[in-house]
Amino acid sequence: MKILGIEHIGIAVNDLVQGSSFWKLVLGLKHTGKEQIASQGVVTDIYDTGKGKIELLEALNDESPIAKYLDKRGTGMHHLCLEVKDIKASIKELNENNIQIIGDNYSIGAEGYKVIFIHPKSTGGVLVELAEKPKL
Amino acid sequence: MKILGIEHIGIAVNDLVQGSSFWKLVLGLKHTGKEQIASQGVVTDIYDTGKGKIELLEALNDESPIAKYLDKRGTGMHHLCLEVKDIKASIKELNENNIQIIGDNYSIGAEGYKVIFIHPKSTGGVLVELAEKPKL
Repeated sequence: MKILGIEHIGIAVNDLVQGSSFWKLVLGLKHTGKEQIASQGVVTDIYDTGKGKIELLEALNDESPIAKYLDKRGTGMHHLCLEVKDIKASIKELNENNIQIIGDNYSIGAEGYKVIFIHPKSTGGVLVELAEKPKL
Repeated sequence: MKILGIEHIGIAVNDLVQGSSFWKLVLGLKHTGKEQIASQGVVTDIYDTGKGKIELLEALNDESPIAKYLDKRGTGMHHLCLEVKDIKASIKELNENNIQIIGDNYSIGAEGYKVIFIHPKSTGGVLVELAEKPKL
């Protein structure tokens, strides 16, 4: 599978204002976007580290996967996103290797990326997202 | 603080052989090193994604922070490491901002980096490592 690098780390926060203070004010990371992704039940604030992004994730509602994660685990790292060259080819490879993906096909995530999530059962406990950058 | 990017993601595994199969065999990431870091009680296998590394962490003994983490949380993402330009200046800034660091000063981590860990209490639940690349 052609992996291009760590695209971002998703971090679950209770609210974006309080949850962003360390990343924004202490580390001084540059805020590059804020986006609501209804299909994933989240609002995300995106910060650029210079090499890979930090995505802070706030739940949109009680049914959000982030709300459920916060109930179970509290705030912290939620998922690891790797950029791939070709999401369709990657999904095909995952299926051939009997890797458990969440949903049947990719969806559109933050910044227009085509994304698919891999179940932590198949990775050793890490929720892994694969993302293909949109063509300009 | 001058942050240069995501250096790596540390992932706690029960053992490096079983824990590496997804990263090595399914994703096909390149293995770039294996190292024992006695001061942190770990053996680490390092994989390069092309932009940021994956560090798999196995406990060296029962007193290892990784052994304690596995007992409490199971396998999964353990810490997020950001590369900084100047570790001493970064520690000074953290102290000025009343951010809780673990230990008083940096230690030498994997690949000879100068590293310091920031307590999850000060970041919103994420164990954050800052690392300065050794001069060649």
